[in-house]
Amino acid sequence: MKGVAVLGSTGSIGRQTLDVAQSFPGEFRILGLAARSSLRLISEQVRKFRPLLVSCQGSPEEIAGLLELGCRPCSMEEMVCHPSVDLVMMAIVGEAGLMPTLAALQAGKRVALANKEAVVMAGELIATYLQSDNPAILPVDSEPSAIWQCLRGEDREVARLIITASGGPFRQRPLKELAQVTPQEALRHPTWNMGPKITIDSATLMNKAFEVIEAHWLFGVPWDKIEVVVHPQSIIHSMVEFVDGSVKAQMSLPDMRLPIQYALFYPKRMKNGSLPRFDPISSGSLSFESLDPDRYPCFQLALDIAMRGGTWPAALSAADEAAVELFLSKRIGFLEIPLVIQQAIKGHQPVMNPSGSDILNAAAWAREQVNAVVGR
Amino acid sequence: MKGVAVLGSTGSIGRQTLDVAQSFPGEFRILGLAARSSLRLISEQVRKFRPLLVSCQGSPEEIAGLLELGCRPCSMEEMVCHPSVDLVMMAIVGEAGLMPTLAALQAGKRVALANKEAVVMAGELIATYLQSDNPAILPVDSEPSAIWQCLRGEDREVARLIITASGGPFRQRPLKELAQVTPQEALRHPTWNMGPKITIDSATLMNKAFEVIEAHWLFGVPWDKIEVVVHPQSIIHSMVEFVDGSVKAQMSLPDMRLPIQYALFYPKRMKNGSLPRFDPISSGSLSFESLDPDRYPCFQLALDIAMRGGTWPAALSAADEAAVELFLSKRIGFLEIPLVIQQAIKGHQPVMNPSGSDILNAAAWAREQVNAVVGR
Repeated sequence: MKGVAVLGSTGSIGRQTLDVAQSFPGEFRILGLAARSSLRLISEQVRKFRPLLVSCQGSPEEIAGLLELGCRPCSMEEMVCHPSVDLVMMAIVGEAGLMPTLAALQAGKRVALANKEAVVMAGELIATYLQSDNPAILPVDSEPSAIWQCLRGEDREVARLIITASGGPFRQRPLKELAQVTPQEALRHPTWNMGPKITIDSATLMNKAFEVIEAHWLFGVPWDKIEVVVHPQSIIHSMVEFVDGSVKAQMSLPDMRLPIQYALFYPKRMKNGSLPRFDPISSGSLSFESLDPDRYPCFQLALDIAMRGGTWPAALSAADEAAVELFLSKRIGFLEIPLVIQQAIKGHQPVMNPSGSDILNAAAWAREQVNAVVGR
Repeated sequence: MKGVAVLGSTGSIGRQTLDVAQSFPGEFRILGLAARSSLRLISEQVRKFRPLLVSCQGSPEEIAGLLELGCRPCSMEEMVCHPSVDLVMMAIVGEAGLMPTLAALQAGKRVALANKEAVVMAGELIATYLQSDNPAILPVDSEPSAIWQCLRGEDREVARLIITASGGPFRQRPLKELAQVTPQEALRHPTWNMGPKITIDSATLMNKAFEVIEAHWLFGVPWDKIEVVVHPQSIIHSMVEFVDGSVKAQMSLPDMRLPIQYALFYPKRMKNGSLPRFDPISSGSLSFESLDPDRYPCFQLALDIAMRGGTWPAALSAADEAAVELFLSKRIGFLEIPLVIQQAIKGHQPVMNPSGSDILNAAAWAREQVNAVVGR
């Protein structure tokens, strides 16, 4: 049995990971569960999966209740390093996923990575852990999973990566109405059901810029060989064009359980009757559009900043996280997200070849700047 | 340098093979050229590529002219067995490709196979030469090449193959007009520029049935796990659905030089600036339709016959070859092709587990029956 720690177990990816693990009895031993909040849900999960370790926040009485179930509280860093853990499912959203990810990689664990902020913030550092034959990082996000699947068995003779984007809920909204969109509207993604941070990032296409950054670091492909194309149906999750002009695409109906399962079992593919099947005829046409830079200013802004290297992408990621929080709490409007990010971090003094703490410092600085700009 | 024999060098695939070889100086030594006719063209090819061996038909004077160029006439079977030949490009159309293909496989050569009749006729025999790690057959046809590329690096955890079909020139022609279509109209394929036999087979979808048969034998996938879907744009050349529901598709603009090059260089992919690149935005939508059995009666007829095994598919292939010739010479109409085939071979007495000569006998019998049915 594969020993698994699920970090972010009460979020969308964490819950689906436990679903998949349950569909394959005898394959996985859930050794650790970690969640920032949702103590009620994590208690249920502890009762069901009986992990050795748990990491969560709660009152002394609440934690005592978990202890009675036979598991030991610990930090996420300790959990991922436990000798019986073979694979870490990193499903924590945002910056909070960074240090446990680095700890797991340093401990030589495989990390199934659903958190893209860790790679955005610390891509250079994380890239040092990657070897193509025994990957330390197994991407869980549908787009990098698609690229990873398309590269399987290939000799990295890549001409370009073509990452698809649904275009989010505002792809066809008149531009002049975008200033007024509410968090509720932005949270209504047309094809994917995900957590709030990633859903807002999908509406601004910040998420797509993050995927470009992730692909650059995880697959070692130069920036100018990564393209994004809008594909509203979210059936083709990404494509790889090889040097001979042959293109491979990975397709499926949008369901995160497939890339989760692929990462959990890699390199094995397992039959799972509960996953929806793609049917070319009933799925209708597959269409592609170019990305409109005026509609999605976050996209180019993020890439321009990320390409500067050093701690710039960490500042970007933290500023985005803070700006999205401000949008969700209705302190800033939808179109202010890129403006606030740009304004906040324009004076960043980067550290090149940063350590983990340089990265965290840059992120803390960027968050402060966002709050200063918005005038908290 | 890889030693290559090109059989069918004056046909569409043969000429494109030589084009590709010429684009990569120093990679290939063309050791043999074979063609049934087109002596003028094969003389030019001999002058350009200076092969050791040539196989063609001509007057004693014509053959003497080739001898003066320093090459030796021989049979195709002798050519494919020459010790310096590493790879045989089998680009002969129809039954004539069968015996040289079997000879090459018996001699332990790799065969880049553009001829699908050989696999249709002798699939069981040919399958005995296949090992997945060092394939003896490298498919050149775009659909099996697509499947082969999608299977690359995968552990054959296949749920189904989805072979795409353009639908041919008569996909939208009113059914009642099909009886009157001329060879000229049938030879105008909407997306591919190919030789006459395969173009007529594409109009009847006999060609697609042959690809199902080919996929069954080359990839070892059961009949009921191979589907055909009409995809008029011919961009997705085929798809593989794996047991986890993930689908891989191979895409490119329709150009046979890509699968030819892939087979010639396998497992390496080579940059070739003269191949067209797929651009998702300019290529428009990709659409899929189910196959209309009333429009394409050859398709199910062929599969029903092929699944009987033994010498049945050899009889089928030969009857089709004869029927297509009769259609091209305007002796029968377009809709008579399936009727003639069915009528001709219905009394076939099959040999199970057939040898090469059993297969040739069945084919000769079927041809005679076709001519008897049409009343030559």
